[in-house]
Amino acid sequence: MAAEDSLSSPGLDRVAGEKFLQEAFQIMLEEGIRKGMDASEKVCIWKEPEELQQILDLNLKDSGEPHERLLERCRDVIKYSVKTCHPRFCNQLFSGLDPHALAGRMITEMLNTSQYTYEIAPVFVLMEEVVLKKLQKLVGWEKGDGIFSPGGSISNMYAMNVARYHRFPDCKQKGHWAIPKLAVFTSEECHYSIQKGAAFLGIGTDNVYLVAADEKGKMIPADLEKKINQAKSERALPFFVNATCGTTVLGAFDPLPEIAEAAWGGSALLSQRHRHLLDGIERADSVAWNPHKMLMTGLQCSAFLVQDNSGLLQRCHCAQATYLFQTDKFYDIAYDRGDQTIQCGRKVDCFKLWLMWKANGSKGLEQRVYEKILHLGKVLLPFLPEFINLCFWYVPPSLRGQEGCTDYWVKLEKVAPLIKEQMMKKGSMLVGYQPHGKQVNFFRQVVTNPAVTRDDLNFFLDEIERLGRDL
Amino acid sequence: MAAEDSLSSPGLDRVAGEKFLQEAFQIMLEEGIRKGMDASEKVCIWKEPEELQQILDLNLKDSGEPHERLLERCRDVIKYSVKTCHPRFCNQLFSGLDPHALAGRMITEMLNTSQYTYEIAPVFVLMEEVVLKKLQKLVGWEKGDGIFSPGGSISNMYAMNVARYHRFPDCKQKGHWAIPKLAVFTSEECHYSIQKGAAFLGIGTDNVYLVAADEKGKMIPADLEKKINQAKSERALPFFVNATCGTTVLGAFDPLPEIAEAAWGGSALLSQRHRHLLDGIERADSVAWNPHKMLMTGLQCSAFLVQDNSGLLQRCHCAQATYLFQTDKFYDIAYDRGDQTIQCGRKVDCFKLWLMWKANGSKGLEQRVYEKILHLGKVLLPFLPEFINLCFWYVPPSLRGQEGCTDYWVKLEKVAPLIKEQMMKKGSMLVGYQPHGKQVNFFRQVVTNPAVTRDDLNFFLDEIERLGRDL
Repeated sequence: MAAEDSLSSPGLDRVAGEKFLQEAFQIMLEEGIRKGMDASEKVCIWKEPEELQQILDLNLKDSGEPHERLLERCRDVIKYSVKTCHPRFCNQLFSGLDPHALAGRMITEMLNTSQYTYEIAPVFVLMEEVVLKKLQKLVGWEKGDGIFSPGGSISNMYAMNVARYHRFPDCKQKGHWAIPKLAVFTSEECHYSIQKGAAFLGIGTDNVYLVAADEKGKMIPADLEKKINQAKSERALPFFVNATCGTTVLGAFDPLPEIAEAAWGGSALLSQRHRHLLDGIERADSVAWNPHKMLMTGLQCSAFLVQDNSGLLQRCHCAQATYLFQTDKFYDIAYDRGDQTIQCGRKVDCFKLWLMWKANGSKGLEQRVYEKILHLGKVLLPFLPEFINLCFWYVPPSLRGQEGCTDYWVKLEKVAPLIKEQMMKKGSMLVGYQPHGKQVNFFRQVVTNPAVTRDDLNFFLDEIERLGRDL
Repeated sequence: MAAEDSLSSPGLDRVAGEKFLQEAFQIMLEEGIRKGMDASEKVCIWKEPEELQQILDLNLKDSGEPHERLLERCRDVIKYSVKTCHPRFCNQLFSGLDPHALAGRMITEMLNTSQYTYEIAPVFVLMEEVVLKKLQKLVGWEKGDGIFSPGGSISNMYAMNVARYHRFPDCKQKGHWAIPKLAVFTSEECHYSIQKGAAFLGIGTDNVYLVAADEKGKMIPADLEKKINQAKSERALPFFVNATCGTTVLGAFDPLPEIAEAAWGGSALLSQRHRHLLDGIERADSVAWNPHKMLMTGLQCSAFLVQDNSGLLQRCHCAQATYLFQTDKFYDIAYDRGDQTIQCGRKVDCFKLWLMWKANGSKGLEQRVYEKILHLGKVLLPFLPEFINLCFWYVPPSLRGQEGCTDYWVKLEKVAPLIKEQMMKKGSMLVGYQPHGKQVNFFRQVVTNPAVTRDDLNFFLDEIERLGRDL
C-alpha cells in the first residue's frame, strides 16, 4: 500500500524544499557569516554541556517538526557554535572564511557525487587532476600522482602505506607476518597522527623512533642517523622517514634532505618569502599537504602527493570492484581513479580549492602566506618563532621578577588555563595553549586569517592582559 | 611591507564576499536543484574528457578572475556535473536530494569546525552523541559507543582495528610481529572495502577468507565454519567475521548470528517492514551504517558503532596530544571525544542527519525505506531480489529465444554496456551494470529516492527498451 501510494506522487515537496533552503541560507548569512566575522560580536557563547543540551533539545522523535521550528533550530545551532571565521578565533591552525571556497563547498554538497568514476563525476575527476598537478609543481616535481584524502592524518597513513608497499609489495597480500619488522622515524615534535597511523597500519607505536629536535623544534639529523642505527640493531627495518614542515606547536621546519612528508606548513610553498623553509622538499617521495589550514579552503582538504607516476598508488590500493570499475566502459577508464584510494565513496574536496584559486590566482594566495608582526609586551617567549606560530607565556604582575622562586613555574603553568576559561566564558576570543616538553603551559597564536587587522592583534594582547593581570 | 599593509585593513572584502555567496547560491538553486530534479531535463551532459577540459578551462593561473566570470564557472561546473538528485539517476546506492540534509550540510560548511573538542564544537559534540545513541538503539543495544567516519570503507577498517585491539591490545604498541597471524571472514559477496582494509591494516588480503554465498547472495553459515577451520589449520587466528546487511550488487542480507557489521542496508532498521532482515544484529560487536545511502543525508555520513562502552574506542585509538586534549581544561574533558578516532581534524557529519531527522521524524524516515514495485516485461532476472536491489538483463528482440545458442551469453554481455553508453550520451538516465560471479553484465536498479514516481519507473523500462531494441 505505502509503496503504491508513494509512487503516485513524489515523496518530496520541491517547492517547500526550496523555500526551506532559501530561508536557511539567509539565516546562515545573517547569524553565521555577518555576525561571525564581526569583531564586536562574541567568538562563542559559552554554555555548560547540560545547559546546552536543554537549550537545543537534541533528541530525535517519531514525528517531524514544522518549517518555522526547523529554521529556529538552524539559527540556534549557528548561534551556539564557535565562530571559526571570527577575527579573534586563533585556537587552531585553521581560521577565517573564504567566500569562494565556501561557495565551492556548498555547490559540492548540492551536487553530492562521489569522486570515484568519470561516469558520475566528470568535472571533478578532471579538476582534481589539475589541482593535484599544480600542487606537485609547487613541490618541485615534474611528474607525480596524488589523491585528496579526508584529512592530514589519513594522508600520513597513505604515506606510510605506500612506502611499505613500495618496499614490500607482498605485504598487501600476506600482511606483516611475511616481512621484517618495520621502523618509522619522525621527530619528537611531529604530529600525533604518525603514532596513530603506525598503530592503525599494524606497525605499532613502539616501532616509531622519535628523533630528537633542537631548541627551535627542528629534527636533528645526527640523531636521525643514531636512531636508524638503533632500529637496525633492534632488528627493525627502516622504511619511512617523516619530516615535518611546520610542526604543530612551534611551527618548526625539519631540515629536508631526509624528508618524507609535510602537512601544515606546505602552503608556504606558495610564498616567495617562505619557500626557502621547504628547500629540499622535491627530494621527498611523498608529501601530505593540507590546504584546509593556511589556505582556508575549509575542512576537509588534504592532498596526498607521490613523486611516482608508474601507478604505485593504484597498485598499492586497488581492489578492482567489478560493479564500479567495469573494464568494458565506452570511455577511457584511466579516468576512473577511485581504486587508487582506500575509500569507496569519496567526497569531492578539490572544487573549493580550485574556485578559490581561480578567484585569487596564485599571487593572491601567496599574499595569504605571510607574517603578521606582533609587538610583544609583557610576554616571555619559550621558543623563538621560525614560522607564523607565536608561542608565549603571559606573566601576570604578581609573578614578575620571581623567576628564581621555587614555585614560579608551578604558578605560571596555571595562568594560561585560567585566562582561557575566562576568555571562553566571556566569548571575547579563542586561542590555544599547551605544555610542551619541559615547558609549562603557554599560548600558541597562529594568524592565518587575512581578515585579521592590527586592531585585532592589539585587542588580543590587551585582552590577555585584562584577563590575566589579577592572577 | 606586505605584512604591514595587510594589517592596516582587512584582507577580505566582506560585502563582495556575501554578494558572491548570494549569487552563487541562486545559481545553485536554479541550475543544480530546479533543473537537476526536473525529469524533463538531462541527468548528464556527456562530454569526452578532452572536450570537457576545453570547456571548463581548469588551469590555475597567477592572477585571479572577476566576479562574473567566477559565477559563470560555478554555473558550468553544475551544468556539466551529473545530477545525482535527478529522478532518473539510479547509478549508485545513493540518489536524490533532501533539502533539510542539504541545509544541514551548507551550515556545517559555513561553520567549518572540527569535531574533536567541546571547546570548538560544543553543539556538534553533543549532537553526535545523541544521533549515535539513536542509531545504537535501533541496532538493539542498550549501551554503546561510536563515531562518524569518512565513509563506509573507513568504518569497516575501524571495525577490524577495534576487533584486533580488543583481542590483542599489545598490537597497538608492538605491531603484528608480536601477535599470531590474523584471519578475517567475509562472504564472497561482501563490499571490496574489506579487502582494502585488510591490506591497509597490515593484515593482508590473503588472510581474508571468502565464505561462499548462496544463489541469493547470502553467506552460507556451514561454509563459514569450514573456512574458520581452514584458517586454523593454516595457523591463522580468526578474530573478525564480517556480515553484510544488503550486499552491494544483489542487496542480500547475511544470516546474522555471526555478524560483525553492516553498511548499505543498515537503514532498513528504521522500517517495521524490513527490520526482520537484520534480526540478530544486536549480537554484533560493531556495526558500520551509512545513512548517506538509503537515508539520503549526502556524502559523507557513515556511523561506526560499537557495543562496548568501557572506552574501547578511546583506548584503541588515543594518542593523547597535549596541544589539543589538555587535561587541565575548565570543563569536563570527557566531552573532548576526538582522540577516539584515527583522525585529528574531523568534519562534522552528524548535523545533516540530525536536521533531516528532526524534519521528518523517525516515522517519516521509515517511509523512505520501502519497496518500489517494478512490473517487469522483457527482462530476465539473474537473481531474485531480497531487498530493493533489482538486478536484471534486458534481452533485445534479436536474442530472444536463443538461450540455447553457443554465443548467447557472449552477446548478452555486451548489451548492458551499449545501452549504458547510449543513455549517458543522451543524458536520459543513469543506471549501473556489472558482471557478477558467473553471470554476465546485468543492470542493477536501486530506487531510494522518494521523489521517484511511477512515471519515472515506467520511463526507465521504456527507455531501456528504446535504447536496446535494435541491438
